[in-house]
Amino acid sequence: MRVFSEEDLERAKAFFDRAGLPAEWVEVPHQGRTLHVSDPSGAPIEFCATMDVKPRLVVAFERHHGAVPQRIDHFQLLVPDVQKACEFWISMGFRLSEYISPDGTDDLLFVFLQRKGNPHDIVFAPGDGPRLHHAAFSIPESYHFFYVCDLAGEMGFAANIEFGPGRHGPGHALFVYMRDPDGHRIELFNTHYQVMDIENEPVRWDASHAIQRRWQLPARRQWFVEASRFAGVAPREPARKGEPMSLEKFLAAGRR
Amino acid sequence: MRVFSEEDLERAKAFFDRAGLPAEWVEVPHQGRTLHVSDPSGAPIEFCATMDVKPRLVVAFERHHGAVPQRIDHFQLLVPDVQKACEFWISMGFRLSEYISPDGTDDLLFVFLQRKGNPHDIVFAPGDGPRLHHAAFSIPESYHFFYVCDLAGEMGFAANIEFGPGRHGPGHALFVYMRDPDGHRIELFNTHYQVMDIENEPVRWDASHAIQRRWQLPARRQWFVEASRFAGVAPREPARKGEPMSLEKFLAAGRR
Amino acid sequence: MRVFSEEDLERAKAFFDRAGLPAEWVEVPHQGRTLHVSDPSGAPIEFCATMDVKPRLVVAFERHHGAVPQRIDHFQLLVPDVQKACEFWISMGFRLSEYISPDGTDDLLFVFLQRKGNPHDIVFAPGDGPRLHHAAFSIPESYHFFYVCDLAGEMGFAANIEFGPGRHGPGHALFVYMRDPDGHRIELFNTHYQVMDIENEPVRWDASHAIQRRWQLPARRQWFVEASRFAGVAPREPARKGEPMSLEKFLAAGRR
Amino acid sequence: MRVFSEEDLERAKAFFDRAGLPAEWVEVPHQGRTLHVSDPSGAPIEFCATMDVKPRLVVAFERHHGAVPQRIDHFQLLVPDVQKACEFWISMGFRLSEYISPDGTDDLLFVFLQRKGNPHDIVFAPGDGPRLHHAAFSIPESYHFFYVCDLAGEMGFAANIEFGPGRHGPGHALFVYMRDPDGHRIELFNTHYQVMDIENEPVRWDASHAIQRRWQLPARRQWFVEASRFAGVAPREPARKGEPMSLEKFLAAGRR
Repeated sequence: MRVFSEEDLERAKAFFDRAGLPAEWVEVPHQGRTLHVSDPSGAPIEFCATMDVKPRLVVAFERHHGAVPQRIDHFQLLVPDVQKACEFWISMGFRLSEYISPDGTDDLLFVFLQRKGNPHDIVFAPGDGPRLHHAAFSIPESYHFFYVCDLAGEMGFAANIEFGPGRHGPGHALFVYMRDPDGHRIELFNTHYQVMDIENEPVRWDASHAIQRRWQLPARRQWFVEASRFAGVAPREPARKGEPMSLEKFLAAGRR
Repeated sequence: MRVFSEEDLERAKAFFDRAGLPAEWVEVPHQGRTLHVSDPSGAPIEFCATMDVKPRLVVAFERHHGAVPQRIDHFQLLVPDVQKACEFWISMGFRLSEYISPDGTDDLLFVFLQRKGNPHDIVFAPGDGPRLHHAAFSIPESYHFFYVCDLAGEMGFAANIEFGPGRHGPGHALFVYMRDPDGHRIELFNTHYQVMDIENEPVRWDASHAIQRRWQLPARRQWFVEASRFAGVAPREPARKGEPMSLEKFLAAGRR
Repeated sequence: MRVFSEEDLERAKAFFDRAGLPAEWVEVPHQGRTLHVSDPSGAPIEFCATMDVKPRLVVAFERHHGAVPQRIDHFQLLVPDVQKACEFWISMGFRLSEYISPDGTDDLLFVFLQRKGNPHDIVFAPGDGPRLHHAAFSIPESYHFFYVCDLAGEMGFAANIEFGPGRHGPGHALFVYMRDPDGHRIELFNTHYQVMDIENEPVRWDASHAIQRRWQLPARRQWFVEASRFAGVAPREPARKGEPMSLEKFLAAGRR
Repeated sequence: MRVFSEEDLERAKAFFDRAGLPAEWVEVPHQGRTLHVSDPSGAPIEFCATMDVKPRLVVAFERHHGAVPQRIDHFQLLVPDVQKACEFWISMGFRLSEYISPDGTDDLLFVFLQRKGNPHDIVFAPGDGPRLHHAAFSIPESYHFFYVCDLAGEMGFAANIEFGPGRHGPGHALFVYMRDPDGHRIELFNTHYQVMDIENEPVRWDASHAIQRRWQLPARRQWFVEASRFAGVAPREPARKGEPMSLEKFLAAGRR
């Protein structure tokens, strides 16, 4: 992840040191001084303040292909303790934009955190973890959702389209999830709004509402449980296993 | 359905009379002389050459709402004998644009017929019939597929979105199927090409290829077997029951 | 232009022979028997019923580039006598879909004729002629209008974008006109409706209304007067010169 | 304009006081403590940290009409001394994202400043000022540019569409400028990228390049010189009058 300045990097180092968490300076090609840390879930995170600058492609129209992804929008991690992850990342300076709680409780089941005015920069969902659920890229228009699916289908990657296109509840964006040839999950996503004003309270979603079908059918079970391991980090199980409304469960229940 | 001229109506009457099929002149409000017939499957069909002309709404932008449907594109019927339906409608003047045959045979399993240069004006699929599977409306852009789903979801009709958005094999168009509050199925559909040249051979699809997943997941079983009955016409079963690759079957088979 | 059948070609030959106009059979690579004729304005027209069939590219998504043009939609010619051209082409079997007349008269100033259910297949506008004003290609979505302009700009062809994007009065479509490197004019165009029912009267536009600014500014003078000559056919002037509302005139009049 | 916190408001007050510029606390309905200041050009600016929170409309699809504007993106002011404005606003904490300089000089002719990761939040252009050139709203897709123009045309506001749709040089976005019934200028605009990393140098545009035609024709002269006065603030002329390449000049020069 990017921080704004070298001073912010120093602050991050001190923050992780104080928390008794791993934090060390490393050399990484094509970027400035780089900090490797582990968050309380054990997820390895990389911070730097500068990178080699490449020419912008936003108007390099001849090089616009496929979904025309424009930037990394956010990451989602599965962690065994969402509440703990949320508290830690807020103490680091992130702000909670939306969250899902079991009805009638204030437990944090699923949290969306932002730092740069995006609806979310990092998302924590419950599950065996830490594992990387997906990285999301922002794409321009409705047209690109269909075009990238059409391309994938034509190129023999239909089975890599895992979920969508559809419309999210929290975050509100259109999405489609794909698996790359190694099985890592990518979200293509559009986002047309910003979340940055101090009076914006985090938006609460009751779990019973959050799992309601928007217009797309629910995701298959694999979307809820499959994720990418971090090298050398063994996932741990959450204290309580969730009960996601998967497509398989939805159909078995005879729901429409 | 529309025919071009009063002379064509007369020809249609004579055609059905010769075939020994019901054909009678009726009065229908807002349209010219009207012919009610039954095709060999027993499906009731209405023909006329003229209707009251209403102002075009194509540039009445203030009245563009939702999916902005622009015209009826085609109808799809379930019939117990697709081969027979196809032969009859071709003898009436329709042309076969695409068809699905079981691999290695020339049987007609699923046929797309056109008369006015659309990829298809009437489609016959196998099943208990005659029943109306859906009526399709042409809509303008990718954006409208998402917008109409979003609207439906917001208005509490998420469960009425039955299949899609997705990309068809035969016909190639983007589609979404919805059920109206009475359960009748509507397809919203875009179509950007014409089929009209005499040297265009009907396009053959092997059944094994036609059922392959494009990028969307397969339709639920209900899409294959539920359809609207015609008043007073009892459906008959086909000689051989099909084995559609439904979403339920797809998931049970552990396919991706 | 395409006709449907070899019989239609024969009919076309007889029609031009009866009219005392040039009509001869020629050999043209990649197409069936071909008829070369001249219409009353002297415009050379080619008819055939069949061509070599090429694979459809409508779902060859990897080959979709730029504006993704899908088919030739229509041609527009400048002719010195629009009324005469219109009468001749109607007698050949075309139908008038829309026309512009000077207010309070029934003169035909500008005519849109169709044969295959398009809003127009051939258009006649007044001017030194016969000359080819443009050939129009149908493109899919709003997005493609911008994308093709962006590409053209990036590739150094900004000056080739002559008029638009904008919205037509007659025909109603979105459009953009470009000049190819030889100066020939191409229209990229979308069209989402069909004109085919017998009770549809031709739509009349008063000239004063037709020249009103829709939302785009008027075309530059060059759009009205520049066109491609046919080889070996000298243009003749119309009896009465028109007074198009060019962008230059619009600005000089201080209009907004 | 919004600041993030009450502390930032205090800092702004102190900043303007130190600069000897007007700055006073005022009461404004529907927002928290509010600061009214004048910048060195005399432009009246309002800052606050909180406002009454209204329900988000991003997924209130039934209320999506016209261009579906989503948020205020930026303001553009005409000022007699762009260099001075730029230096002042940078000292307040804004960052320069792009700028136009006369070829071969480092003068600031036209500057784009951002604070919240937008390509620009405030823009200063040379002219009689201070005057408000326009306020810009972000809209979702290509489709909405055409739809809002079509609606405006249908509702009798064609003459209010002043410039575009077109593609910007600096900032890169698609745009269309409209004048509201009182003559104030609104830009509808899309923006799909963020500018926030510290190693991003401000992008320089040579004036000769910045005025080159992208694909749209240049703006009419009125776009360069007409703007909204601030109540009670008399505009002053710049030391040197600019020579914008207006549409009128472009056509008079016989350029294409």
